[in-house]
Amino acid sequence: MTQPSSLEDLITALRCLPGVGPKSAQRMAFHLMQRDRPGADRLARSLEHALETLRHCRRCNTFTEDEICGRCRSTKRDEGLLCIVETPIDMAMMEQTLAYSGMYYVLMGRISPLDGVGVRELGLEKLLERLDGGAVREVIIATNFTNEGEITAHYLAEMLKARPLRVSRIARGVPVGGEIEYVDAGTLAQAIRERKSLAE
Amino acid sequence: MTQPSSLEDLITALRCLPGVGPKSAQRMAFHLMQRDRPGADRLARSLEHALETLRHCRRCNTFTEDEICGRCRSTKRDEGLLCIVETPIDMAMMEQTLAYSGMYYVLMGRISPLDGVGVRELGLEKLLERLDGGAVREVIIATNFTNEGEITAHYLAEMLKARPLRVSRIARGVPVGGEIEYVDAGTLAQAIRERKSLAE
Repeated sequence: MTQPSSLEDLITALRCLPGVGPKSAQRMAFHLMQRDRPGADRLARSLEHALETLRHCRRCNTFTEDEICGRCRSTKRDEGLLCIVETPIDMAMMEQTLAYSGMYYVLMGRISPLDGVGVRELGLEKLLERLDGGAVREVIIATNFTNEGEITAHYLAEMLKARPLRVSRIARGVPVGGEIEYVDAGTLAQAIRERKSLAE
Repeated sequence: MTQPSSLEDLITALRCLPGVGPKSAQRMAFHLMQRDRPGADRLARSLEHALETLRHCRRCNTFTEDEICGRCRSTKRDEGLLCIVETPIDMAMMEQTLAYSGMYYVLMGRISPLDGVGVRELGLEKLLERLDGGAVREVIIATNFTNEGEITAHYLAEMLKARPLRVSRIARGVPVGGEIEYVDAGTLAQAIRERKSLAE
């Protein structure tokens, strides 16, 4: 294909986005250059601005433009609870529930040997430092219920065992609004094993 | 969600990409800022470079960095054939067939009233100028076989009727390797209507 090199470069660069293959990258490049040049310009500038300003919160490791993020600076949250999540997106989901008002620690990933992410790459020393410094009495592990998330949860639980902390894991079970008929067998098995007495 | 504003801006900017909703935009922003900062930087720079250098070929209307694109400057192609396609991607697909060695005209879109693209927005004067100047004896309309593509093809055919040109449309039918069992009824009906005599 004899496309102009700047267009080829753009198509190649777009492929660094997750889930974008050669066809989508072509379609995106065409859309940006033909139909939405202001959008392309805004995207370029916000990429540069984000690269310049975004860093990790010294306490919870999430993205922030400051030394310590707003949530960690807040005085309205329970300092005794620390919820460990994989990504800032998961943290935002937890916040949306309005069911949690403690602190967070964001792993910014998960243990995933297939992707070359081991314990060292996750940089768990920062989490341990966070626990050393704080008044945390309970750690709630809220990694995903995928294989990688479960391995990470298991590793974290082992690592924290020696400390005088309550370590818990968010519950697995049938989703709210879920129908038994359509729930997978693994989830249902877990829901049976972790059944709750109604007398409680 | 109390995310840093530069991250929010990036997520908003990513949504200008076709097919990217709020969830994908979040995932992309996280990926770029956490796992692929060099990729984000390259993307920003190639967007800027493409915005600066890319313009439309004066003859065929495709993207080029020059006044006239390499394909239009080539002396090895048949000047008498002009294939009209919707996008540069379609042109690249035609080229991949190695079955065509004429010239192109790229509409950079299609007539699509629902998206506010009418005949005027397509700027067909440039196509007419192209035909005025050239030695074209046949126009091959290769717009998509979607509703919009068909409307565009119909409009082009009407517009070109008065000119001393052969105007043709690429063939519809069962795809190569296609099984009758799985072909949709519309395509099959067309394949029957446009059947070819084997004696030819």
